[in-house]
Amino acid sequence: MRILRALFRPVALAALLVSGTAASGSASHAAEARKVIVDDDGSGIAEWMLLQAPNVDVLGITILSGDVWRDEGVAHALRAVEIAHRTDVPVLRGAVYPLLNSEKLTDRWEALYGKLVWKGAWMKKWVEPTVQSTPPYHAPDVVPHLPEGDPTIKASDEPAVMFMIRKVHEFPGQVTIVATGPMTDLALAQRLDPSFASLAKELVYMGGSLNPQQVRPDVAAAQFAREFANSPRREFNFRFDPEAASIVLRAPWRHIVAVPADPSTATELTPEFLHKLAAANPAFAGTISKREPGFPLWDEIAAAVWLDPSLITRSEELYVDVNSQFGAGYGDTLSWTPGYQPDLDEQRETVVRTIDAPKLEAFITSLLARPLPNLSPK
Amino acid sequence: MRILRALFRPVALAALLVSGTAASGSASHAAEARKVIVDDDGSGIAEWMLLQAPNVDVLGITILSGDVWRDEGVAHALRAVEIAHRTDVPVLRGAVYPLLNSEKLTDRWEALYGKLVWKGAWMKKWVEPTVQSTPPYHAPDVVPHLPEGDPTIKASDEPAVMFMIRKVHEFPGQVTIVATGPMTDLALAQRLDPSFASLAKELVYMGGSLNPQQVRPDVAAAQFAREFANSPRREFNFRFDPEAASIVLRAPWRHIVAVPADPSTATELTPEFLHKLAAANPAFAGTISKREPGFPLWDEIAAAVWLDPSLITRSEELYVDVNSQFGAGYGDTLSWTPGYQPDLDEQRETVVRTIDAPKLEAFITSLLARPLPNLSPK
Repeated sequence: MRILRALFRPVALAALLVSGTAASGSASHAAEARKVIVDDDGSGIAEWMLLQAPNVDVLGITILSGDVWRDEGVAHALRAVEIAHRTDVPVLRGAVYPLLNSEKLTDRWEALYGKLVWKGAWMKKWVEPTVQSTPPYHAPDVVPHLPEGDPTIKASDEPAVMFMIRKVHEFPGQVTIVATGPMTDLALAQRLDPSFASLAKELVYMGGSLNPQQVRPDVAAAQFAREFANSPRREFNFRFDPEAASIVLRAPWRHIVAVPADPSTATELTPEFLHKLAAANPAFAGTISKREPGFPLWDEIAAAVWLDPSLITRSEELYVDVNSQFGAGYGDTLSWTPGYQPDLDEQRETVVRTIDAPKLEAFITSLLARPLPNLSPK
Repeated sequence: MRILRALFRPVALAALLVSGTAASGSASHAAEARKVIVDDDGSGIAEWMLLQAPNVDVLGITILSGDVWRDEGVAHALRAVEIAHRTDVPVLRGAVYPLLNSEKLTDRWEALYGKLVWKGAWMKKWVEPTVQSTPPYHAPDVVPHLPEGDPTIKASDEPAVMFMIRKVHEFPGQVTIVATGPMTDLALAQRLDPSFASLAKELVYMGGSLNPQQVRPDVAAAQFAREFANSPRREFNFRFDPEAASIVLRAPWRHIVAVPADPSTATELTPEFLHKLAAANPAFAGTISKREPGFPLWDEIAAAVWLDPSLITRSEELYVDVNSQFGAGYGDTLSWTPGYQPDLDEQRETVVRTIDAPKLEAFITSLLARPLPNLSPK
């Protein structure tokens, strides 16, 4: 790593100037495309938003376990780039397992502290009747056939974590990480290379929960409110790998934007919105029309506020960490108004509290409506 | 990783047969040298023992932070291979920081639960008067001049963790890891590649503490007994990175040999023993004569029992894990007689309880006395 670090020094200032220039122009007029790596536990509309956005260079899509096991998530991401005619964007395999958490530990935790609403890759069934389907429970290396069709292209052979490290060294101060799953990959990258976070331009993540309130009146919104009704500080991405999240949130990033569960309660992938999206672009229509409605737009908010910060209607500056003690609060979000933080390397973050939901829907629709590049679809 | 895993399958059986053949012959008659990677937080006599041992192929020496910061440890290891005329053996850079533990967290922990006797890279001073010197406190990237002379060769550019993963795939079922420092590197390797541990031949580690008793009557032995007198389950390698140790000890290794602090209390690097070692081989004499006496032979026992298991006078089969709760017992060794383990993936280990100390001294002396290879020294 030392050689890479030595290489970085002479380049750094120039790189920062370039990045400064790009940031000062509007996205569509900047000379250089904004570089981003998406680190996700599956693949959805958020990836398409970033792939379709003007003046954005998606360097790669890295996939780790979370909502589904990594290999299933990789298949979704491969299919997503095929559908978007963006097979030039590599899909890379990240972590299969969280650092310390496991299915067995989750069972023991639930036996002590009560049932989790959502458990991701090792979810077996909802506790209460729920309109959302439960993804089939299977082993980590099983990849079920995908509703959107199975991909024909393959993932890169480079491990996701090494790819991330390589890219922040190649483009120091220029790479944004949009992280919308658990933080295992990012924690591994930071511990493999202590300069990783400080070489990135910024981290934009979906994770954590401060004090979400149910906003929408429908059944799906009421059911998703189960996740925070009795546990306002619990959120799946942090809870799936609390130790990784704590490592990442205490790393020396230059800039962090956090999208906790809070702003997502104003949003929903309604049948009407899905319909609008399907109508916007025939290329995505087939897949979009197979999507299950009802979900809040978690990851889409993270992608959107990076692409257009004017979607944020309220944010605040907080220090954030994650409870990594295996007790009742395991994985809970910890946050402090500046001055109250314990000073254990936790970082100041711009935490998005509310967003403009109608503007977000219009923004997503406009991105998906853009014509696809002429790369031959697979 | 999937490609590597696919490659592994057809090779595995043949590899096991080869390895079985080697194990059934005596070390000096086996057709193939026993492959080993040493993962250490510095470099000492243990590395020379392995480099000098007949029929042993040291694939590489990987260094991480622990007793000293990684970069200082790397310098020692580079100098060690120079002195041993083994600059053909690569030295690789591992983790600089533990997963979650840090100097700041250690300060807070001590303020709650009392002072640690030894703190490694962030040790500032002994609590009580102690005959052992305190290594100078410095930043992670500072490398002081070495008493044995500074190395002129450089470390490999390949990250230690990637090297380890690459080697267990290249020689499936054949590589022993002798780990004599904290377990950060091994934890990163296991989470980067879930097949890592199961592809290695075995793990032989120095770490943990069951119930050590002071055996030797001298001052140094009494002072080192401070480490376990009031905390029999605390040992530095586990305590420096408890989360990493827990990840590693719950990974699916084929075979684990543990060397806790317990057998080390019968051993000591006395002035007389150092004298004997210096006299055994002029190549090592200069460095050996600069070594501070008084230390138990921690890492040397791990190297020795792998080279010659007949040095073990008592061992037992136990399940072992590490307390990763940030409370009074943070980093403490957890162990269970088979049947009592919680079944959270902790593994059965052969735990060395006592060794034949005089035979160990003679064995170390005989290894160091062997002539050096004819590679030109640097």
